[in-house]
Amino acid sequence: MDARQILKENITKIVELTDAQLDDFYACCRRESFRKGQFLIREGDEVTREYFVLSGCLKTYFLNDELKMTILQFAMPTWWASDYMALYNHCKAAVNVDCVANAEVLSITAEDRERMCHKIDAINHFYRWRTNRGYAASQKRLLSLMTNDTKKRYEDLLVQYPTLFQLVPKHLIASYLGVSRETLSRLYHASR
Amino acid sequence: MDARQILKENITKIVELTDAQLDDFYACCRRESFRKGQFLIREGDEVTREYFVLSGCLKTYFLNDELKMTILQFAMPTWWASDYMALYNHCKAAVNVDCVANAEVLSITAEDRERMCHKIDAINHFYRWRTNRGYAASQKRLLSLMTNDTKKRYEDLLVQYPTLFQLVPKHLIASYLGVSRETLSRLYHASR
Repeated sequence: MDARQILKENITKIVELTDAQLDDFYACCRRESFRKGQFLIREGDEVTREYFVLSGCLKTYFLNDELKMTILQFAMPTWWASDYMALYNHCKAAVNVDCVANAEVLSITAEDRERMCHKIDAINHFYRWRTNRGYAASQKRLLSLMTNDTKKRYEDLLVQYPTLFQLVPKHLIASYLGVSRETLSRLYHASR
Repeated sequence: MDARQILKENITKIVELTDAQLDDFYACCRRESFRKGQFLIREGDEVTREYFVLSGCLKTYFLNDELKMTILQFAMPTWWASDYMALYNHCKAAVNVDCVANAEVLSITAEDRERMCHKIDAINHFYRWRTNRGYAASQKRLLSLMTNDTKKRYEDLLVQYPTLFQLVPKHLIASYLGVSRETLSRLYHASR
């Protein structure tokens, strides 16, 4: 797998980047492999990096005192993930990030990212653009969650992550939607 | 009220800006006054602008088919508001933005903002920084909402908007929290 090429495509979909600029940015990235179930971030950790998924799938989730899991996000290939609250505000991680399936990722520290944004204009635009989209998607999810229409939430999920049902066990999808497995099963069979 | 000064303070908390750069940016801004209850954005509108609140208070909300209101965000002075999904993706507004109290705002079009981001590096950094924070806050709210602890959500709200209870009727705060007025009243009195 050509990690540099995957990263390049992700960035140049949004902004133009010379090969030298890409080399500069790529030199800041660390490539790592994680096995299914392995943690990238644990609640309480200091968070210094964000992760770009090359293959596999991550989940960002919270466990309450009764160990009930709430999934905030899945991250599929070419998605970025971290505990952004912790990353930007230098507070401890409030969530966990682990692997739903074996994953290869690139990671970059917040410090390197900031340095690159100041050095390379295009990278600054890229991150601004990406976060804009992330923010808008997050607002949309919030709205979808608050307006509480499970069927619509399920349909949105299929549009957002069309390959999710091949990759992720159903109980995790139910946890993302905030519904029981029985409700999910009913929606799944009704939609086929 | 010196609108330029308020905007300047909001931006220069984050990045340095020369007077000439501020003039350039401010020249793109339109100053407007709205009365309590007046709409800035209506569901179904084309959305071309985002709004910076100088005084007063806005709310961003969704009405379902039964006219049940779900409040996504309050915007107090020095907060920014829009339907960002519509603004970035050029789709119709999914939410309404109106005034909880008479408001003065500055607004800028997405087009001018993009132009300014390309012209003035500091503005590019400012918007990237601001959206990072917005995204992180939105993730935090999502988590808070999904983990479903009403008391904690209420406390977070007091921390996030300490002056809210002076500005906003209680039924709107209940709608923001997704609880009944009775539950809100219980939390309110328990916290005093």
